[in-house]
Amino acid sequence: MTISVPSRPRASVILAAGQGTRMKSPIPKVLHKVAGRTLLDHAIDAAESLGCARIVVVVGAHSPAVGVHARKRLGEAAVVIQDPPMGTGHAVLAAKDALADFDGDVVVTFADCPLVTAPVISPLFDLRASGADVAVLGFEAADPGAYGRLILAPGHVLLRIVEAKDADDSVRQVKHCNSGVLAADRALLFDILGQVGNDNANKEYYLTDVVGIAHGRELSTRAAFAAEASVQGVNSQAELAAAEAVWQKRRRLALMVEGVTLPAPDTVHLAWDTQISPGVTVEPFVVFGPGVSVATGAVIKAFSHLEGATVGEGALIGPYARLRPGAEIGAEAHIGNFVEVKKVKVGAGAKANHLSYLGDGTVGEKANIGAGTIFCNYDGFDKFETHVGAGAFIGSNSALVAPVRIGDGAMTGSGSVITKDVPMGALAIARSDQKTKNDWATDFRAVKLAKKAKAAKKDSK
Amino acid sequence: MTISVPSRPRASVILAAGQGTRMKSPIPKVLHKVAGRTLLDHAIDAAESLGCARIVVVVGAHSPAVGVHARKRLGEAAVVIQDPPMGTGHAVLAAKDALADFDGDVVVTFADCPLVTAPVISPLFDLRASGADVAVLGFEAADPGAYGRLILAPGHVLLRIVEAKDADDSVRQVKHCNSGVLAADRALLFDILGQVGNDNANKEYYLTDVVGIAHGRELSTRAAFAAEASVQGVNSQAELAAAEAVWQKRRRLALMVEGVTLPAPDTVHLAWDTQISPGVTVEPFVVFGPGVSVATGAVIKAFSHLEGATVGEGALIGPYARLRPGAEIGAEAHIGNFVEVKKVKVGAGAKANHLSYLGDGTVGEKANIGAGTIFCNYDGFDKFETHVGAGAFIGSNSALVAPVRIGDGAMTGSGSVITKDVPMGALAIARSDQKTKNDWATDFRAVKLAKKAKAAKKDSK
Amino acid sequence: MTISVPSRPRASVILAAGQGTRMKSPIPKVLHKVAGRTLLDHAIDAAESLGCARIVVVVGAHSPAVGVHARKRLGEAAVVIQDPPMGTGHAVLAAKDALADFDGDVVVTFADCPLVTAPVISPLFDLRASGADVAVLGFEAADPGAYGRLILAPGHVLLRIVEAKDADDSVRQVKHCNSGVLAADRALLFDILGQVGNDNANKEYYLTDVVGIAHGRELSTRAAFAAEASVQGVNSQAELAAAEAVWQKRRRLALMVEGVTLPAPDTVHLAWDTQISPGVTVEPFVVFGPGVSVATGAVIKAFSHLEGATVGEGALIGPYARLRPGAEIGAEAHIGNFVEVKKVKVGAGAKANHLSYLGDGTVGEKANIGAGTIFCNYDGFDKFETHVGAGAFIGSNSALVAPVRIGDGAMTGSGSVITKDVPMGALAIARSDQKTKNDWATDFRAVKLAKKAKAAKKDSK
Repeated sequence: MTISVPSRPRASVILAAGQGTRMKSPIPKVLHKVAGRTLLDHAIDAAESLGCARIVVVVGAHSPAVGVHARKRLGEAAVVIQDPPMGTGHAVLAAKDALADFDGDVVVTFADCPLVTAPVISPLFDLRASGADVAVLGFEAADPGAYGRLILAPGHVLLRIVEAKDADDSVRQVKHCNSGVLAADRALLFDILGQVGNDNANKEYYLTDVVGIAHGRELSTRAAFAAEASVQGVNSQAELAAAEAVWQKRRRLALMVEGVTLPAPDTVHLAWDTQISPGVTVEPFVVFGPGVSVATGAVIKAFSHLEGATVGEGALIGPYARLRPGAEIGAEAHIGNFVEVKKVKVGAGAKANHLSYLGDGTVGEKANIGAGTIFCNYDGFDKFETHVGAGAFIGSNSALVAPVRIGDGAMTGSGSVITKDVPMGALAIARSDQKTKNDWATDFRAVKLAKKAKAAKKDSK
Repeated sequence: MTISVPSRPRASVILAAGQGTRMKSPIPKVLHKVAGRTLLDHAIDAAESLGCARIVVVVGAHSPAVGVHARKRLGEAAVVIQDPPMGTGHAVLAAKDALADFDGDVVVTFADCPLVTAPVISPLFDLRASGADVAVLGFEAADPGAYGRLILAPGHVLLRIVEAKDADDSVRQVKHCNSGVLAADRALLFDILGQVGNDNANKEYYLTDVVGIAHGRELSTRAAFAAEASVQGVNSQAELAAAEAVWQKRRRLALMVEGVTLPAPDTVHLAWDTQISPGVTVEPFVVFGPGVSVATGAVIKAFSHLEGATVGEGALIGPYARLRPGAEIGAEAHIGNFVEVKKVKVGAGAKANHLSYLGDGTVGEKANIGAGTIFCNYDGFDKFETHVGAGAFIGSNSALVAPVRIGDGAMTGSGSVITKDVPMGALAIARSDQKTKNDWATDFRAVKLAKKAKAAKKDSK
Repeated sequence: MTISVPSRPRASVILAAGQGTRMKSPIPKVLHKVAGRTLLDHAIDAAESLGCARIVVVVGAHSPAVGVHARKRLGEAAVVIQDPPMGTGHAVLAAKDALADFDGDVVVTFADCPLVTAPVISPLFDLRASGADVAVLGFEAADPGAYGRLILAPGHVLLRIVEAKDADDSVRQVKHCNSGVLAADRALLFDILGQVGNDNANKEYYLTDVVGIAHGRELSTRAAFAAEASVQGVNSQAELAAAEAVWQKRRRLALMVEGVTLPAPDTVHLAWDTQISPGVTVEPFVVFGPGVSVATGAVIKAFSHLEGATVGEGALIGPYARLRPGAEIGAEAHIGNFVEVKKVKVGAGAKANHLSYLGDGTVGEKANIGAGTIFCNYDGFDKFETHVGAGAFIGSNSALVAPVRIGDGAMTGSGSVITKDVPMGALAIARSDQKTKNDWATDFRAVKLAKKAKAAKKDSK
């Protein structure tokens, strides 16, 4: 996504300190994934897309893995710890020192809202640009229930935010709710936060109080609105699944609009970075893990699973193809059923259509890998490579014991275990002579049946 | 489910005598399945969960398989035959002798209502405990249509039940409908049933008439209410699918509430007894047959199919793994793509990642089963076992011909057919020397192409 | 479908000249598929089912592939080209010469409406039979938006059709919309079309103007109505997916009504010609390509993919079975997981249950194909056949190198590469002797571990 360069520097404070106990999971809430990417990374992506020069993630002391994850992506300085948790306002204050030298706008977002993307947040900066001192992202709730309410004057002027538990009957009627996302000048924000108190039922410092205080100072406080589905937080496994469903539905539709054919879109599961070109068909029941790109004219047939793989123009994948990281499938190549490809570059027009494992190596253009072929790439300690030359023909049920090279145009006999390189144009064969024992099967059956009859007789006694 | 011990003894009469002609199936209706379990067994499960000391299944003469099935689970005495069918009241009367010596409450349920579980029925016993002589389970129908209507006085006092075809316009407006489920004291129930006549359009004895008669005797007749979706009967394939969908949706949600991660819950199909621990992730497109339990931290990847299997903590299953009955996968073990496991105990940390068949035997801890390995367990008559020791390494594309033992830490060469035991720490290898025929492939191609050219020339003449 | 012989001869003009730019696809719009069949073929099917003696497809000059496709099915004379495009009326006129000698009714349909089947169109001919000169198919739109409106007098008498852009406020309120489908006497239709002008915003000749002109001539113009979902056109990938979804939903329901058990109907994808008998069960996640028929009692288990295959009574297919064209599976036969069958007739009671490729040949009755068996049918140029006799037993992990015949009751040893015919009742075996090198694995590990330790030491320096 290209976002125009912001007029003022931007920073982001991402609140990731929630416990997420309702997830009932050993994994911290914000490390759960939507579209194959952690909730936290979705929040960071949004901040980066908005052009934030600085990103501070506020984590809790209870889940060190969250800090580890954030530091890995953003560096040591990007993580601050809120301990103990004393409310959202208190959480933002934890980022105060980290942003002390920053001159510009700060947007506060939540690490558990994976659908709050840059385009959803952008209107807050538009409000800032048009003179709002504090800009808040709201939404109209079908069932406002426990959400904080936005008390508005005409023109989306925001008077204050009232938490549901502090709301009287008339406030409870209000459908405009608070998403929690807020933008303001850095210095102003922390100045006001210093004034926020905890004189409420929970004895917490609420970020939402910033609005009322700002309004009291006769500053301009305004709201922009997003679709309810876009600002939903994730607090339970069911909400995680719901966010995933919204994400998937939107992305599938976007792909169709771009010209991708999805006969059964609801059965195609995409990752956050899946790239599919117009003119591609993806059949029912296909799963994309992260890191996949598919070029035009390719067909991904049913029951395929792709991850970290590239698929060339006009290639035919599946059904039941498994492409793992490092699979690079050339144009017009075919990867067929029950075939796994990992770290193998498959040349244009090559075919591996049945029951094969291709791991570590290369397959040349127009080579043909017979049914049941295994690249034996592992000795229990190290991985070795198999290279199959252009136009080579690997007979069915072959084992190619790496490291090994099959020359261009070479062939291997069906059922062979190939341990030595095969020169260009040669045939290699490694199998035993067939011996036939006449009547052996007939006799074997007779003996077996007699035994079974005897056993049955014994049992019936 | 733990249900507290009932204050009075309980018995159950399950009506399973319907013909189910609308199913248009060779299988009797109540032997069709929801969540991998027959409708009849769901009804029996409910009765057992309610603590019923006696369960009588009323079957029709037309479908002997139903009786066979019920007797197998409940014993000979539990099945009575209604022949010919003369209405629901008549069907319950068929159980009269079987319960003649029973002193307590009887609940009448239907074998084609798989969502009428113990918690759905329980409120009838609460009504009984609070003084109701006859307790009926009703529901509020969105479209009452052909359902019998409950004619109620205030306080859920039930005056009578009117069949839809006997209803006048005002009765047709009633939204409270009859589920058919009813509880009463055994002696009273059969006493009243003796009074029920068949003076109606269908010349049938209706169980529902019990209510009006009881009310006429100035007995207490009351109704409890369930959700409409819970009391739906199955009379067609579409209704069977609908019941399945409701069941699945509820169970998926329950798992998520417990802490199971289901990124695409609608694509996970569970069985009646599937046990999945909190902290497990089940990816899209997974099918559980009966008898599966999965321990925490395990990940079941896409396109996996599990039945009669246990999966240990932190194990990684799939994608495309097929676990069949007797597969016991140890902690942190990996069962990968296109791998079938049947009656094999796989040790902790062992791996079988690609295109393998493991049938009958054991795989030791941290053993590595190479791609394309087959346990050759069958000789056409008997099955034999393969035992792979701890830390053993089975080379790719191997055939292990059972009975055979691979010692701890032993290895087998890729492409070997192993027919004899391999001692601990040894290497076994069984494959032919590779012969190379230089230029053979090149010459073969030249001959083939010449032939094809000649044939093409001939065709074009 | 059997449709009674029409009283007057019928012809069909199918408009297939649209550009379909919103599809953003290299494939012309009407060659996209619903239920595995092109939109154009669905339209032709409808015309054929209606008993049309003549079918003319009007194609645009921009997509020659459409004409090629139509000529292949209907012959050279059935295709006319509209160039340049000047409206729907102009498109129908392009068919004038082709039908000059035809005496009877003409129905105009659209190649991008795959749900406009014969039963949907039929009512127009009923109107014709009851005296209507021009009969138009309408529908009641939930959101009439950009659809043309039908201006009706009582009795479905149609006064005129008003395009949305020419509609005033009162016309815009009309919910009766035009599907575009229209029937009239051939001579009359072309006579009126000659009178249609292009004095409108788009400077196009509208087919819809036929109605107003006919009404002006005091001819009888009437409308019949179809469900909105049935007349939806396909103009984008999302609409293609929507049409597919409607088609699938209807066909699944129809199968259930006929007695097919579908525990999760939404997960079964059918083709236009899929034939499934009552008493069959199709588990979740099954894809049918064209050309499949399944006999009663068969069970198609999860994750199976069938195309061009027949499945006999009581056969058990899958899970993960792939049946390709020419797979003919006999009664009670089993095709199990990760097994691909192509152009092989499998006899009654035969089994191929695990990880096998059966291509080109036959498998006799009650034969058993062991796990990991490969029919090696291809030499890079030609395909050859494998024939396995009745009651034969193919040991696991065998390669049968075609052309080859395994006699009735013969056996092959596990892990054998069978290159020569095996006589009836014989055992053939082709494998190497097993050699055991004691302590080899232990020593290998020691060396490997020492190397790794050394390397690690080096790295840490």
